[in-house]
Amino acid sequence: MTDQATLPIHPIGVIHTPLTDESKAPIQSARSDIEGVIEVFPQYEAGLDGIEGFSHIHLIYNFFQAGDETSLTVTPLLDNRQRGVFATRFPLRPNPIGLSVVHLLRRDKALLYFKGADMLDGTLLLDIKPYLPEFDVFQAERIGWFYTRSKP
Amino acid sequence: MTDQATLPIHPIGVIHTPLTDESKAPIQSARSDIEGVIEVFPQYEAGLDGIEGFSHIHLIYNFFQAGDETSLTVTPLLDNRQRGVFATRFPLRPNPIGLSVVHLLRRDKALLYFKGADMLDGTLLLDIKPYLPEFDVFQAERIGWFYTRSKP
Repeated sequence: MTDQATLPIHPIGVIHTPLTDESKAPIQSARSDIEGVIEVFPQYEAGLDGIEGFSHIHLIYNFFQAGDETSLTVTPLLDNRQRGVFATRFPLRPNPIGLSVVHLLRRDKALLYFKGADMLDGTLLLDIKPYLPEFDVFQAERIGWFYTRSKP
Repeated sequence: MTDQATLPIHPIGVIHTPLTDESKAPIQSARSDIEGVIEVFPQYEAGLDGIEGFSHIHLIYNFFQAGDETSLTVTPLLDNRQRGVFATRFPLRPNPIGLSVVHLLRRDKALLYFKGADMLDGTLLLDIKPYLPEFDVFQAERIGWFYTRSKP
């Protein structure tokens, strides 16, 4: 396989949020109290069985605003100098894949109501995975440029 | 856009690990001390600038073993009954996207040496994002079937 082969990744749903203006969206879900609704397409509803038992879920999605534009060096929203895009969460990446952990409030069939929206309305959903502290919490002793930026 | 449209997601590198047998692979990176090497394709090397400052990184990748097989209900490796696939980390998902947080040991140009391998040798890499406790650690009060399973 060459590095340019496209993989058969396709939307499994749509994320509805009140966010329509990128410049006003929260920078990360951890800083957002905004509520949204995930609409999983009907043919995938059976895959949600048991998801309501989890308080937090990972959402993997397609960055809505990215279009065809990508950049290998970007200035992060929380910084003022250029960084390699893989050292940031910036949307304009070679693959416009976004990752957010959100608080699952309740499920109604194929609709998942959540808090912590940081993605634009109409974002295409690619996958949902449960968030498990046992697997997802790590002691990160070094946080790169983010540490420098955080200093007073 | 219909729900079956394929998105232009493509590999940006390959993950080399000593794991070639799915049945012997660690279940999660958090339980793995196995080392591996990420080979980012040369045309994306500039995107790694600054990544070496982070001790932990998210890897988003294509499940190697998934092929075209998917299932909406699966029996998780850590459980003994069927669950909706989105309530699990099982590989056979509508989109075969894997997510692991690994410990970045060092960088040599476009090679990233890491600990915490839980993916098979030859896994195709889709994205790298820094792991930041401020954004990635959540207090998950409910962990679904995983809690039941964990009980003695």
